[in-house]
Amino acid sequence: MPPAAPRSGDAIFASVERVNAELFTLTYGAIVRQLLTDLEEVEEVNKQLDQMGYNIGIRLIDEFLAKSNVSRCVDFKETAEMIAKVGFKMFLGVTASVMNWDADGTCCSIVLEDNPLVDFVELPDTCQGLYYCNILSGVIRGALEMVSGNEDGSHLDS
Amino acid sequence: MPPAAPRSGDAIFASVERVNAELFTLTYGAIVRQLLTDLEEVEEVNKQLDQMGYNIGIRLIDEFLAKSNVSRCVDFKETAEMIAKVGFKMFLGVTASVMNWDADGTCCSIVLEDNPLVDFVELPDTCQGLYYCNILSGVIRGALEMVSGNEDGSHLDS
Repeated sequence: MPPAAPRSGDAIFASVERVNAELFTLTYGAIVRQLLTDLEEVEEVNKQLDQMGYNIGIRLIDEFLAKSNVSRCVDFKETAEMIAKVGFKMFLGVTASVMNWDADGTCCSIVLEDNPLVDFVELPDTCQGLYYCNILSGVIRGALEMVSGNEDGSHLDS
Repeated sequence: MPPAAPRSGDAIFASVERVNAELFTLTYGAIVRQLLTDLEEVEEVNKQLDQMGYNIGIRLIDEFLAKSNVSRCVDFKETAEMIAKVGFKMFLGVTASVMNWDADGTCCSIVLEDNPLVDFVELPDTCQGLYYCNILSGVIRGALEMVSGNEDGSHLDS
């Protein structure tokens, strides 16, 4: 049999088990609130959210590989597109765009048009400097580290 | 126009925005892990999970009322059935059963046949006494408090 064809983020998202997005949003809000109470400093909260995301990412990559049938990305550009178009769609049900590439092609932005994590979120002035969604960059960092095997550190500098 | 008919948990769940259940499961696991690290005592973690659930429940009830079109429950039995059959289905996509009623009809168990929160979860021996899913009872407590207006405390004793 030929290998299975890669599947679109839409097709995967439609086929996996899901939970109510509002429940997820409120649960995530409860985490951030808890961390702000326990750690007090927004810098520490940013770090902790990244670390939690990292721990999730190193597990979530298994689900990504099992469901997506994608083959190894040839370069960082393809990797970024895969995260934006397949990864975000598959897990959050939204599409992201890759933009703001630097001249070297080692740095870019992944921009979410619609981010379920921030629905109903209002931050007080005391939270200036908080990267509310920092868990997402941690997830990406953890997931990429598992597939890169650390052979190319440039993927992890962003 | 006549009032809209109550909708089944299945119908509501099919119509709301959702996210990948595995992402939710891993995110919840990250919360519990974080609390265990920060608070150390499992009793404190149980309390905090309940409190986080409570804060979620007092918000989530709005979504429940807006989407379900259900009318006021006549008694605690109907309330328990509504939570099990509509609430759990609508938010977690699973069905629960109500059982173990006491003679007074003031105490019962809501049993989940399939609980997405515990997928892949293995607890070490040091976590004895941890109510891993305690956030769920907090959610129910918060949601019921918002609709009961505290006029009948018996709903909140369980």
